[in-house]
Amino acid sequence: MQTFSTPDAPFSDEQFRAQVQAAINGKTKPLGALGGIETLAAQIAYIQMSLEPRADSCSLTIFAADHGMATAGVSAFPQDVTRQMVLNFLSGGAAANVFARSVGASVRVVDAGVAGDPLDHPDLIQRRISSSTANAIEQPAMTPSERDAALSSGSALGHEGDETVACFGEMGIGNTSSASLVAAKILGIPVGDLTGRGTGLDDEGLRTKRTLLEQAAGRTGTQLDAPAALLEYGGFEIVMMVGAMIGAAASGKIVIVDGFIATVAALAATSLSPGCRRHMVFAHRSAEAGHARVLEALEATPLLQLDMRLGEGTGALLAFPLVKAAAAMLREMASFESAGVSGPA
Amino acid sequence: MQTFSTPDAPFSDEQFRAQVQAAINGKTKPLGALGGIETLAAQIAYIQMSLEPRADSCSLTIFAADHGMATAGVSAFPQDVTRQMVLNFLSGGAAANVFARSVGASVRVVDAGVAGDPLDHPDLIQRRISSSTANAIEQPAMTPSERDAALSSGSALGHEGDETVACFGEMGIGNTSSASLVAAKILGIPVGDLTGRGTGLDDEGLRTKRTLLEQAAGRTGTQLDAPAALLEYGGFEIVMMVGAMIGAAASGKIVIVDGFIATVAALAATSLSPGCRRHMVFAHRSAEAGHARVLEALEATPLLQLDMRLGEGTGALLAFPLVKAAAAMLREMASFESAGVSGPA
Repeated sequence: MQTFSTPDAPFSDEQFRAQVQAAINGKTKPLGALGGIETLAAQIAYIQMSLEPRADSCSLTIFAADHGMATAGVSAFPQDVTRQMVLNFLSGGAAANVFARSVGASVRVVDAGVAGDPLDHPDLIQRRISSSTANAIEQPAMTPSERDAALSSGSALGHEGDETVACFGEMGIGNTSSASLVAAKILGIPVGDLTGRGTGLDDEGLRTKRTLLEQAAGRTGTQLDAPAALLEYGGFEIVMMVGAMIGAAASGKIVIVDGFIATVAALAATSLSPGCRRHMVFAHRSAEAGHARVLEALEATPLLQLDMRLGEGTGALLAFPLVKAAAAMLREMASFESAGVSGPA
Repeated sequence: MQTFSTPDAPFSDEQFRAQVQAAINGKTKPLGALGGIETLAAQIAYIQMSLEPRADSCSLTIFAADHGMATAGVSAFPQDVTRQMVLNFLSGGAAANVFARSVGASVRVVDAGVAGDPLDHPDLIQRRISSSTANAIEQPAMTPSERDAALSSGSALGHEGDETVACFGEMGIGNTSSASLVAAKILGIPVGDLTGRGTGLDDEGLRTKRTLLEQAAGRTGTQLDAPAALLEYGGFEIVMMVGAMIGAAASGKIVIVDGFIATVAALAATSLSPGCRRHMVFAHRSAEAGHARVLEALEATPLLQLDMRLGEGTGALLAFPLVKAAAAMLREMASFESAGVSGPA
């Protein structure tokens, strides 16, 4: 297991914190009147150690991979859909592409381990660890060297690019199950507490999924550390996203964390490299059962609540304009003093 | 009182509704997986009667005016701040300007009745009804002809421009009190149920405000129709916004409704012209007490909840990227069929 250094020490410059708060309070608005946008602006200031922060360029990286357990019946969709959706991302037709264009973000698509022959496309970033993980219901999803290769590739991808904001998305039929197992083991709670309908199981499908996930969870102890949980139950796209979050944070980026699966990746990333946490902005509260529990463990309050449960980074993209506006508020807004506006009587 | 025609009959084309839902369900995503964005996309499709709707251009119009009752102690800020903030809007330094630049919206500033001499600035749109309303604690805030002039000017401004999306903001020291009174009278509930801290009153300030508003409310009957409520308690900026919402809806625009004060304007606009309602998207749930009650009366679910309470249209601007993305989803996203992606097994 390779180790990651904490990208930066937990922030402790009380003087800078006071400067940030004074700058926000001095803007031409009643005290605290921008609510969550003020909290967000302060976080961005701390990430960049600047009273004039920027968050105006954004990239989305989508990691795609397949899961051995997908063929066992944990998803409403056939495994082929992972591959088909990669082609959809590459031709610009998926929700993530549409939202990226709408908010002005670039898109990269990474094959982390899609089942079948390698896809041949000039725009696809090839980082295949293997063709699908093993079936985690019966055996570890990957080997230690596969896990470490995925973390390492992810970290390198996270470092790439000059964008101030990095969004990460995922595609992989069965990966809601994988994420539920990883989170349950890291948190030491029953996997049933984190099991939902994924992308659209009916009641019977949900019962089958619960049974299978309990069987998978029963293979190992109640609680695992993040490296073991990723090895036993992770997907290549999830592990690569963990690495990417660590790499993006280490290179000073703001990391927007998408829905349930990305939040589980954030949980693992924070466990491996606690300094990541302060780079993370949480995009939205997903409709997927269990998301609230993982958010709570991260003491995270998401910006949006739109009952979305798609993945692909779609929620992160929709949160980007709020992040951009929050940085602009601190950088560009006039102060009472500069604008000659009177304060409260 | 001039009358407004309903901009269009309540929507009843069941066949088109079914087409919209089929188009959304056919997109490459699990059924319903984009949650609130799907609901929003359907609304935009109905507004534009198009399966390929657009919401990619946006304007913000800020109406500013003063309130006779502001000098009685209903606000934490001195009345001069209205005028000072108009200058801040014109020089681009207010939160609304910063957010407008960040999301790509244009800004217009309208003097609907700022106290003192008319401001002389080439970019200021002069629609002054009078220099401040009368003190509504003691007498009607305006005359019938002033109210009708404000509605008429607003309606004309609402019709102007080719933008697909119209946001409206307000500035006026004391206008939270004015809006509380207007809403209480239209809904026939005690004004105390709708009275909050506005832009930052302390406990004593809040007690004073409650006493004054109860005194103001006591001048008239429990319930008033919208024209009477606007005349007795409105501000020129609020009444002009009512007209602008009606005008923008009549010209086919999507109207993004900001926080508490704008939602009260939306309540009055819907009362005067029920067809407006289906053009309205509600931006955010404000931290101001009473907003929830008015939203409920409009059966409105806002997109954001960020504990903001600034006004100026800031919440509407932050909701615009969601509206833009929702329209783009319906217009640009591939279908299962077009992308060759398999549906649920």
